[in-house]
Amino acid sequence: MPEESRGPIDRLAIVGLGLIGSSIARAARRYGLARTIVAVDRDPAVRDRVQELGIADHVTGDPAEGASDTDLVILCVPVGAIGAAAAEMAPHLKPGAIVSDVGSVKGAVVAAIQPHLPDGVALVPGHPIAGTEFSGPDAGFATLFQGRWCILTPPEGTDPAAIDTVRALWAGMGANVETMSADHHDHVLAITSHLPHLIAYNIVGTAAELEEATQSEVIKFSASGFRDFTRIAASDPTMWRDIFLNNRDAVLEMLGRFNEDLSALAKAVRWGDGEALHAMFTRTRAIRRSIVALGQETAAPDFGRPRPPEE
Amino acid sequence: MPEESRGPIDRLAIVGLGLIGSSIARAARRYGLARTIVAVDRDPAVRDRVQELGIADHVTGDPAEGASDTDLVILCVPVGAIGAAAAEMAPHLKPGAIVSDVGSVKGAVVAAIQPHLPDGVALVPGHPIAGTEFSGPDAGFATLFQGRWCILTPPEGTDPAAIDTVRALWAGMGANVETMSADHHDHVLAITSHLPHLIAYNIVGTAAELEEATQSEVIKFSASGFRDFTRIAASDPTMWRDIFLNNRDAVLEMLGRFNEDLSALAKAVRWGDGEALHAMFTRTRAIRRSIVALGQETAAPDFGRPRPPEE
Repeated sequence: MPEESRGPIDRLAIVGLGLIGSSIARAARRYGLARTIVAVDRDPAVRDRVQELGIADHVTGDPAEGASDTDLVILCVPVGAIGAAAAEMAPHLKPGAIVSDVGSVKGAVVAAIQPHLPDGVALVPGHPIAGTEFSGPDAGFATLFQGRWCILTPPEGTDPAAIDTVRALWAGMGANVETMSADHHDHVLAITSHLPHLIAYNIVGTAAELEEATQSEVIKFSASGFRDFTRIAASDPTMWRDIFLNNRDAVLEMLGRFNEDLSALAKAVRWGDGEALHAMFTRTRAIRRSIVALGQETAAPDFGRPRPPEE
Repeated sequence: MPEESRGPIDRLAIVGLGLIGSSIARAARRYGLARTIVAVDRDPAVRDRVQELGIADHVTGDPAEGASDTDLVILCVPVGAIGAAAAEMAPHLKPGAIVSDVGSVKGAVVAAIQPHLPDGVALVPGHPIAGTEFSGPDAGFATLFQGRWCILTPPEGTDPAAIDTVRALWAGMGANVETMSADHHDHVLAITSHLPHLIAYNIVGTAAELEEATQSEVIKFSASGFRDFTRIAASDPTMWRDIFLNNRDAVLEMLGRFNEDLSALAKAVRWGDGEALHAMFTRTRAIRRSIVALGQETAAPDFGRPRPPEE
């Protein structure tokens, strides 16, 4: 793939200017990856803010205007809204256009988009493994994808040139690009992302239901472990509702495995099986070391949280 | 309490120079809280390292030497080793000496220490809510306790002057000090600390048991949520084994609540109850905001993890 010699995309439309969409807009401009960047958002407040931030060449609420003469459309709306967004854009797409997305679920997203696309329009679904717990156009930044992975899940038979275009865009924004089937993506993300979010939401919910006095102490003494969970449990509720509704089977399968392991662990606690506990707690250290070694995590203590200066 | 007018402790012995013990040594010296700091550790490698670091005035492997003429002994060994450490020191303590600790469990620790203490020696158990996932004398730093909480759980009838001495030490190291019963401490910490660690160890363990190909992908794509859990699952295995063995009832009770909530959440996923999911995911955001507002967490995205520069 001669990604280096590839010129910029003529007209790139980004639909939904949240954390991810606005980061793509910023990165595409910063790295010269698109001649014209069109921001499409149905929310007037978001459009106003995008205008103020000056991160797109055109800002519109009209899907037809967004689609018109566009080479690549990236749908950056919650998974549950992707089908409707595709349906609005599709009739206005020119032959040879490419539709992509950034949804955290891929099987359901392909099923939601594909029926709407006219002949001659390619679908190259994508999922950048990057983000923060913040939302909206102000939360984005141009280097969000640097050194992160982006997974593409093009259906069989997709035009290789379309895949290359999307791959080059992500590579240009600093991401490592990998291709796999939508099914496999959904299985892997169920354990790396969806189950962790479910567990985090759950334990924070459990704490939220404690007696009031205890709850205030949970907040006070949260530095002892709990606060790590609250970060991902502060992620966008609509986005996460849609993910669970659209990757139900894989999430429930991983949850089943998690529950089996938790029962065994609870049994070791109940019966005072110190050897089993120690063996398990030793094994889990290695995984973090691998993640740090792969450059997907900081080695600094406490995630590198700011600490009081040493003076 | 005239903490400000209190002079330094004459002789402070720290038993176990790990993350917490070595941080106390550094902070006590930095803030002038003890005239003489004695480091007691049974591990010759740790003693050598403490000598090299120069963070104590005397370094010894002999509990009798550590206890001799000492005003305050702080036991900073894993909870399961505290009873034995107390038994070794106790016969050599002078009347008026104070014994404290930093264990994450308090009921079992009081029960393990108290029988060994001679008359005239006060027990003021403590638990600083501070730490990182790293271990050993090199991991400590003088500002670890700044702005963090330290919980004291003196048994009823403890000499108030002894409590004041321990309180003043922690306040001098920058901690906010709170007093409560050992039982209440163990109940609150079960939800803020022990259950989160159990859950984190468990999900990392579940991932570690996946088919090998999937496991390498879990590591690769961990930035999507999983990696947040690996930090606390990389904590010291011996310390955590001892915590679960010594706070079994409270941990199992909180785990019961967690499991009830998880069943309800799994049901909402299975039946596609988007409203219930959205409501729950909205509620959990508020808790993080409270933790940030209380100064117990950073508001920076991604915990303030280092990110690629904006250029």
